[in-house]
Amino acid sequence: MTSTSLNVWTADPAQTLRVGDGFRLADVDTRATPGYGHGKHRGSADLARGADVLDGLQERLHASSREDPEAPAVLLVLQAMDTAGKGGIVRHVIGATDPQGIMLHAFKKPTDEELAHDFLWRVEKQTPRAGFIGVFDRSHYEDVLIGRVRQLAPADEIERRYGAINDFEARLTDTGVHLVKVMLHISPDEQKARLGERLDRPDKHWKYNPGDIDERMLWPAYMDAYQTVFERTSTVAAPWFVVPADRKWYARLAVQELLLDALERIDPHWPRAMFDVAAEKIRLAAS
Amino acid sequence: MTSTSLNVWTADPAQTLRVGDGFRLADVDTRATPGYGHGKHRGSADLARGADVLDGLQERLHASSREDPEAPAVLLVLQAMDTAGKGGIVRHVIGATDPQGIMLHAFKKPTDEELAHDFLWRVEKQTPRAGFIGVFDRSHYEDVLIGRVRQLAPADEIERRYGAINDFEARLTDTGVHLVKVMLHISPDEQKARLGERLDRPDKHWKYNPGDIDERMLWPAYMDAYQTVFERTSTVAAPWFVVPADRKWYARLAVQELLLDALERIDPHWPRAMFDVAAEKIRLAAS
Repeated sequence: MTSTSLNVWTADPAQTLRVGDGFRLADVDTRATPGYGHGKHRGSADLARGADVLDGLQERLHASSREDPEAPAVLLVLQAMDTAGKGGIVRHVIGATDPQGIMLHAFKKPTDEELAHDFLWRVEKQTPRAGFIGVFDRSHYEDVLIGRVRQLAPADEIERRYGAINDFEARLTDTGVHLVKVMLHISPDEQKARLGERLDRPDKHWKYNPGDIDERMLWPAYMDAYQTVFERTSTVAAPWFVVPADRKWYARLAVQELLLDALERIDPHWPRAMFDVAAEKIRLAAS
Repeated sequence: MTSTSLNVWTADPAQTLRVGDGFRLADVDTRATPGYGHGKHRGSADLARGADVLDGLQERLHASSREDPEAPAVLLVLQAMDTAGKGGIVRHVIGATDPQGIMLHAFKKPTDEELAHDFLWRVEKQTPRAGFIGVFDRSHYEDVLIGRVRQLAPADEIERRYGAINDFEARLTDTGVHLVKVMLHISPDEQKARLGERLDRPDKHWKYNPGDIDERMLWPAYMDAYQTVFERTSTVAAPWFVVPADRKWYARLAVQELLLDALERIDPHWPRAMFDVAAEKIRLAAS
């Protein structure tokens, strides 16, 4: 199968959004909708159709793990500047699937206990089980993003982490975890508008944090840190995808497609019965 | 607020389905639709409308925990015989809300490590954080259901557990966790039909376990164990609700209404801004 299951894409996001050699974050147009020729209205309809396909694939993936404890898993890693839409992806893309097949974890500021261990200690504990779709809302990449920008660790420790991340992710992919690493990319102007909306609406105040402005002031440093992340950790087995996210509807559709692509490459099948179906029918009839 | 937010109920499920004095499980009609005067088609439409209300209340509950780390939580406890529809409740009722506000845990056969601790040890770890809706797919009640029917512990230990459960749940409710304890109740004939469907359909085989028949043979013993659970653990602060579940659409609508009732009693509000909104607007404009 190809990733164009719904035939709504003129170019496959798994190719066009992938970070390859020579990629420059600064060249990405955050308002673009690469590979998708329609607008918001049609995008919503396509998202709903894709949700049904995703739901079916997820159920099969989950079912397959009953027969095979080493069945594959998927891990969606979401990174972004504030307001870029991570929450909307979780709500509208992941939320359209069965919660029983999802393992979602939001990584916050590390606790004292977490800081007393290597930065991957808390991450390892949240990796998805066989048959599950794991979702990281922020991730180990914070440790080379804010970690670098805010100098939360010495330079040589930050340097060490890129290799440690690649080793960690290689182990995940070797053991059947299909990584989908996504940066949702917005422009500073779009962030300004979204932060402004959060300040204007009392029902959005809870999503606003004065610290968001502090991070916003460091935008160029964050973009540099992301560029380095892409150069050092976009591997063949675990590539990065940069998704233009000024248009929320496009970002959701694109991330959904990346997940569909991962699941279609897994191509999960209903497991065979691990019991004698005819014999069980007789037992049931007699019960 | 009352629990009849959608005005679709002629009698409030939080009252009619509640286990009170003199309750007898044997008297419950598993095909009935108490308090709801319409059929399946209208039931589906009402479920969709209720989902929007539930989603809004959940977001407010979640938001309120940002300001108040001791904000309330909800814990839905689902117990049932096999095939009664726990999974469908999770998928269709819980699945209609934002995954970011849900903490779902399916309790399986205890591990060796879990068995080396008191039965509540593993349960305590899964209780919902402030602002979350926790969902237990099976629960600590297994330890007085299969635990009793299969004599997995001595009789005096089983006896001890009822009191321990009441103490544990009283502590939860004292600290702001609103418990919604639900038994989905089906008839043996309905289970037979549903198990038969799982055997007939290859895409359902993974949901079938030959052990289901073994448990089915012990139906009367399980009903006795449930009756004892209700008599010993349906408290004012944490009552049980027995939901007739032969009609899946009704069970979903009723459990949704019980959740709506719990959330409406909490009546969560958008938290006030913990910052100076005007000052932040100025900072944002200058950034």
